[in-house]
Amino acid sequence: MQILIKNIDEIYTGKNGKTIKNGYLIIDEHKISKIGNMHDFQRDKFNFDRVINGEGKIALPGFINTHTHAAMTLLRGYADDMPLDSWLKDKIWPFEASLNKNDIYWGTMLAIIEMLQTGTTSFADMYFEMDIVAKAVKETGMRAVLSQGLIEANDGEEGLNKAIEFCNNWNCKAEGRITTMLAPHAPYTCSDSYFKKIILQSEKHNLPINIHVAETKNEYESILQKHKISPVKYLNKMGLFNRPVLAAHCVYLEQDDMDILSQNDIGVAYNPASNMKLGSGIAPVNNLYQLNINIGFGTDGVASNNNLDLIEEARLGSYLQKVISNDPTVLNTHNILEMLTLRGAKALRLNDAGLLEEGYLADLVLIDILESPHFYPGHNYLSNLFYAGNGNDVKFVFVNGKLLYENGKLLTIDKDKVYYHINKIIKQKNL
Amino acid sequence: MQILIKNIDEIYTGKNGKTIKNGYLIIDEHKISKIGNMHDFQRDKFNFDRVINGEGKIALPGFINTHTHAAMTLLRGYADDMPLDSWLKDKIWPFEASLNKNDIYWGTMLAIIEMLQTGTTSFADMYFEMDIVAKAVKETGMRAVLSQGLIEANDGEEGLNKAIEFCNNWNCKAEGRITTMLAPHAPYTCSDSYFKKIILQSEKHNLPINIHVAETKNEYESILQKHKISPVKYLNKMGLFNRPVLAAHCVYLEQDDMDILSQNDIGVAYNPASNMKLGSGIAPVNNLYQLNINIGFGTDGVASNNNLDLIEEARLGSYLQKVISNDPTVLNTHNILEMLTLRGAKALRLNDAGLLEEGYLADLVLIDILESPHFYPGHNYLSNLFYAGNGNDVKFVFVNGKLLYENGKLLTIDKDKVYYHINKIIKQKNL
Repeated sequence: MQILIKNIDEIYTGKNGKTIKNGYLIIDEHKISKIGNMHDFQRDKFNFDRVINGEGKIALPGFINTHTHAAMTLLRGYADDMPLDSWLKDKIWPFEASLNKNDIYWGTMLAIIEMLQTGTTSFADMYFEMDIVAKAVKETGMRAVLSQGLIEANDGEEGLNKAIEFCNNWNCKAEGRITTMLAPHAPYTCSDSYFKKIILQSEKHNLPINIHVAETKNEYESILQKHKISPVKYLNKMGLFNRPVLAAHCVYLEQDDMDILSQNDIGVAYNPASNMKLGSGIAPVNNLYQLNINIGFGTDGVASNNNLDLIEEARLGSYLQKVISNDPTVLNTHNILEMLTLRGAKALRLNDAGLLEEGYLADLVLIDILESPHFYPGHNYLSNLFYAGNGNDVKFVFVNGKLLYENGKLLTIDKDKVYYHINKIIKQKNL
Repeated sequence: MQILIKNIDEIYTGKNGKTIKNGYLIIDEHKISKIGNMHDFQRDKFNFDRVINGEGKIALPGFINTHTHAAMTLLRGYADDMPLDSWLKDKIWPFEASLNKNDIYWGTMLAIIEMLQTGTTSFADMYFEMDIVAKAVKETGMRAVLSQGLIEANDGEEGLNKAIEFCNNWNCKAEGRITTMLAPHAPYTCSDSYFKKIILQSEKHNLPINIHVAETKNEYESILQKHKISPVKYLNKMGLFNRPVLAAHCVYLEQDDMDILSQNDIGVAYNPASNMKLGSGIAPVNNLYQLNINIGFGTDGVASNNNLDLIEEARLGSYLQKVISNDPTVLNTHNILEMLTLRGAKALRLNDAGLLEEGYLADLVLIDILESPHFYPGHNYLSNLFYAGNGNDVKFVFVNGKLLYENGKLLTIDKDKVYYHINKIIKQKNL
């Protein structure tokens, strides 16, 4: 399958701020085979299966959601504005305890709809019943990095074995769109010995690790009390950071914790909406960015977000860093683009994603710049997208070279069927 | 003109959290004449000019933008991520100096398009060449509170006289949709004697006052240095707060400044996006809300926002207060609704707006709850709108009883013509 996208107003390659005005891009199977300016385009050399007109559009690498719990779409709006403790104990955990495989499948499908429609082409998921999540990813054409969350008290040795089995079953499956990680839930839900086992298995099976780190003040203080060191130093002491790690949140960091993160192979997921909505705190993201850490944006689950729109997430995250630093220059539009794409991809260990460049995976989005008032005037399309736009501006989404979303239509998902099942599930729960 | 909206899934009246499930609403000329449950609806008593089916929709009072500079849409994306000083001096002020009446007209038209499409039915504007702004408001059917900004060094006595003339010419014009205020720009751009004159004229012509207050640390510190008291105390000492005032920003407040605001007839405009993007600071909004001050959301001009979507503004503002207070319970969805509607209306001195209630102005919006994935599941529509949605969810907008926006179509504005003129203006400036 060869696809040409021609006459693109501006291509944001994602590499060192490089853009191509009036550009074209050729997709050959799963990859970008050619990219350039229309002046240099020689049509007669090709025989395309499809030609898409990119006039009035800009192209960017697809966005990377570095941290979510997709099936938690089922909890959207179920509990808001509550103190963290009762929110978890009285609402979220009991609801999650009621979820079966079928629920998680449809919840994940709903999340994939929302992600695709808003330009996300890869997501890192940590949840349970991951086989059914993988099934949803496989069917829809989405790309995902999947991990079964491991809470020692619930999962123990058996859960770890199941998680390893899941990883081995699904790693590099679905045309390579699915990769896997091992996911000890957090420093406060796993013991030293459990961590040691997980690290050992991570080495043995060559699996990166996905984990929540230093999300709340409570966590930071309890680890400090128990181990006399910060969560980051504790995990470092355990040997976790000898492995490639995707660390979500990293809100409560000591100054030298940042050095530990930067000196090891650690990707970080910044979840500003969730950290703000739960009142958790503000991660020192500008510092992490400046240390060249592979930090990307994550939405977290929608119970604490409440959507999966990475454009809004990025704006929120940038503005929050600006006001906290009292400096409007931090996390500018180019930094945002890099976090949403290349750095996010690296954090997820997707080594050939996150750039629009020959040889890279054809995960990309086309954004309409003619229709919405917030794209006028056209001083700066990237600014208009990140600082004024939202996911609704996304018109075409390709993953792995396949067109999955086109002008409001999902090409691999029956949206009404998903909505029907979501409504049915919630009705049956009789909340 | 009598319009029936029937079978509305849920009407959020805006009054003390009151909602009506399966409701109807009748518009008679400019006002809401009846509102209730479909069970009690007697069709045969009426002869409607139009009947709208509200199935799959919720109704809310239209949103109130309590602070903007509409024509600054022309500067969207023109300068971002810059230090405040050079942003203003090198980019914003020179650009603004180049603006003529024609530019301001089309810039305002673009703003009105964006506001209507995202559910805003009233806005408070402070800019220059306000006659042409009033013309745009009159033509489009929008509601607005307009004020000519007065910077003493530029405008002086003559500017004040022109501002008074503008107020008297336009107050209560355009079927009552336009009201006016006097607008000394800020404590640091007007002298004691200029303030005295403006206050006197405000009394004489019965005009409220619109002003920027304590927006930046620089302003706070310079007023403190010059007058030995905070900006709020300085304005209070001048006698400004003996008048009804709309005070924008109020970021740098001392504890007893808040008491001064609550003990006088002061509305406050909270502009979280602008305050964050410019790195200005964080207003103590939850405190002001708890003091029962009429505080609403404002977008500020889009040069520092960069859009006019109040749903996003509200989410940003709520999440910011939650994280700063380290308390997820503050500014909940009901508080947001009240700020977006009733409190915002009161801040703008629109005494019969901001509620869906018999006798109130028919300024209202219908939101689609079936189409977008972020409205599933339907645990809580208000949460889905404010915490997951955005302006694109707005499908019908009424102002003053007239339908101005319906399913993507503006009924009083030729959008393509506006876009054409915006492009032309920017091209001519040859930036």
